[in-house]
Amino acid sequence: MIVDIINKKRLGKELSYSEIDKFFNAYLDGDIKDYQMSALLMAICINGMTDEEVFALTKVFIDSGDVLDFSGIIDNMVDKHSTGGIGDKTTLVIAPIVAACGVPVVKMSGRGLGYTGGTIDKLESIGGFKTNLTDEQIIKQVKDIGVVITSQTANLTPMDKAIYALRDVTGTVSSIPLIASSIMSKKIAGGADKILIDIKVGNGALLNTKKDAKELSRLMREIGKIYQKEVVTIISDMNTPLGYSIGNSLEVLEAIDILKGKEIDSNLYDLCISLASSMVSLSKGIDKAAAAKEVFEALNKGRAYQKFLELVKYQKGDLKKCTVSEKVKYIKSPKDGFIDSINALELGKLSVALGAGRVSKEDKIDFEVGIKLKKLVGDEVKKGEVLATVYYHKDFEMPKVETIFEIG
Amino acid sequence: MIVDIINKKRLGKELSYSEIDKFFNAYLDGDIKDYQMSALLMAICINGMTDEEVFALTKVFIDSGDVLDFSGIIDNMVDKHSTGGIGDKTTLVIAPIVAACGVPVVKMSGRGLGYTGGTIDKLESIGGFKTNLTDEQIIKQVKDIGVVITSQTANLTPMDKAIYALRDVTGTVSSIPLIASSIMSKKIAGGADKILIDIKVGNGALLNTKKDAKELSRLMREIGKIYQKEVVTIISDMNTPLGYSIGNSLEVLEAIDILKGKEIDSNLYDLCISLASSMVSLSKGIDKAAAAKEVFEALNKGRAYQKFLELVKYQKGDLKKCTVSEKVKYIKSPKDGFIDSINALELGKLSVALGAGRVSKEDKIDFEVGIKLKKLVGDEVKKGEVLATVYYHKDFEMPKVETIFEIG
Repeated sequence: MIVDIINKKRLGKELSYSEIDKFFNAYLDGDIKDYQMSALLMAICINGMTDEEVFALTKVFIDSGDVLDFSGIIDNMVDKHSTGGIGDKTTLVIAPIVAACGVPVVKMSGRGLGYTGGTIDKLESIGGFKTNLTDEQIIKQVKDIGVVITSQTANLTPMDKAIYALRDVTGTVSSIPLIASSIMSKKIAGGADKILIDIKVGNGALLNTKKDAKELSRLMREIGKIYQKEVVTIISDMNTPLGYSIGNSLEVLEAIDILKGKEIDSNLYDLCISLASSMVSLSKGIDKAAAAKEVFEALNKGRAYQKFLELVKYQKGDLKKCTVSEKVKYIKSPKDGFIDSINALELGKLSVALGAGRVSKEDKIDFEVGIKLKKLVGDEVKKGEVLATVYYHKDFEMPKVETIFEIG
Repeated sequence: MIVDIINKKRLGKELSYSEIDKFFNAYLDGDIKDYQMSALLMAICINGMTDEEVFALTKVFIDSGDVLDFSGIIDNMVDKHSTGGIGDKTTLVIAPIVAACGVPVVKMSGRGLGYTGGTIDKLESIGGFKTNLTDEQIIKQVKDIGVVITSQTANLTPMDKAIYALRDVTGTVSSIPLIASSIMSKKIAGGADKILIDIKVGNGALLNTKKDAKELSRLMREIGKIYQKEVVTIISDMNTPLGYSIGNSLEVLEAIDILKGKEIDSNLYDLCISLASSMVSLSKGIDKAAAAKEVFEALNKGRAYQKFLELVKYQKGDLKKCTVSEKVKYIKSPKDGFIDSINALELGKLSVALGAGRVSKEDKIDFEVGIKLKKLVGDEVKKGEVLATVYYHKDFEMPKVETIFEIG
């Protein structure tokens, strides 16, 4: 009985594999309604899940769609996933770095539903860039140049997609068991041998405490063991935005600056070095210090940037078409002082108001708008000095400076 | 934001009156979806509600529909509500008793969705009995004979009805705050001055422990205070069925036996005396012992039974048409011994299988079928002796004796 399973979880009891399998598949078949699934999801959010239940749910998600297998074609394939954050353009930076170190990268990314576009949206701000490659094109490209970034081709974990859409509108997103099974099922179905997870913690992130991040990390590594996948996690801060820019073209341009070695003094740079080193270390089975040496070399000798240009060219992109709006407004400092904090969440909301992100799936993104920070946390500022440039097309309401920048 | 309110309750925080008002009214208006309401209901089930939140929800339920006011027409009107149980025909017995004691009774009852019909269904098993009276008919009848039992005429607490239907299919029924606001809003909107609540505890009931029953009792009395309604609660056992019979006509016939003084040795008789005494005590403002004396007199002198006949006649019922099926099967004892327990829930399921209850709102009830117990808990039985008679029309699967009767 459907309601018996919901009641069991409401009372905090453990569901069996067959109960989870039955309930979730009945949902995908339409026999269990949205309102019943959301009740169960809420009970899971509040009462949690045992590891066994999380393993069961992950398996049910994986089994709901295709499972890719690149073995024999691409060896030691590493995938990387971020739990998401404002201004996160790390994939654009690290995919070419890692490829330049000789590690094959096939990155399947998504579009964004939230404060900015996803990696695929950002790449499409490079005019002409093709993001819907076929399986044959992916394999040819990774053999030719060692790096591919594309949208998902196969029908991976359709159940997770259905559940995720429901979680988004029912206040059931923040659940460690649900996050772990969602991410891990996608990565395992995607065929990676080794998986790097970048877990964000902070106001602008899904998880608010380091304790939660550690628990998520533990759980994902446990799931990895079952499928013989090596899982490495990095816990990174998401209280302030990553890097200087928020918005699609702006973020591509910032990624290029990092790959060119122009921007080496930001939290984004540090995180990219750390993630790229972990991926190289994972793939080659060398320690992280040795991997970091390779990463710095690839960057400093310009090989990473060359690899990025190769990638863009191979996927038919034209960087001259990656442009930003000419209409700008400035956010200026109301007083002298030092920047104590920059509110990532508020910047995210402004980004959506400008049109850089989607509110619903059907929204069209404006690639050319966004925000570029001129000052970061710790910087000294004078009254009237520009803190950020806002690139816009349509009219928008400028938020109060104080909601974004705390100046002490 | 809808999701912010759900998230707040997921984290166990208190919702304000305006948040509750906004969320529940948006649901009734269709702006909040079933799957969002069920997520909030589940969060309430698990994380509970403060008294203030329950008061707010009760007010929102009351304000969603009509509120009746009999003041100046019927004074000291007492309403009675039972949280429901298998074989519960107390209303049929106590309404005439209380009326025979001079206390005006206007009882608005419902149809059943569950193991047997509701009070209205039971009365309709008396051929011709009219249950859809107008407001004018109700007031004329209560002035003429002092007692009316009818289905709800006005549009009382439509929001509670919508929420209840959703709770039923999402495992969110067993929540003390939700039960309290549902029952109390209905009773307050119904216009009673004084309210008697019969809270059932046991396997066959909504609440399983006495502790929960006491908490529900406390909460309902607190709600009553706000609306200047005197609330009295009785906590009664629902591990075994109430009385001998389950099924619509059968229960009417048992109620008549009690009113005639033929059956005075059952849990049903004791409960009816207790409830009727409480109602008389509440209405007249006398102590329960004095009220009980009046109740016994009304019963023993035949006035209660006469009042029942008056009621049936006034509402055009014909008791000769209250019949049971001639097709019977017997449940016999498999051994010698004493009856240790009778499973109310299993009898309820059998009752549904026979057609005495509804599974969905559209089902038609068969008034003539049901079960009549020949032995109760504590009775000695011989192997082969009849434990119960099953009245049926269509074929059904006879359950194993052991699932219903435990014989030691």
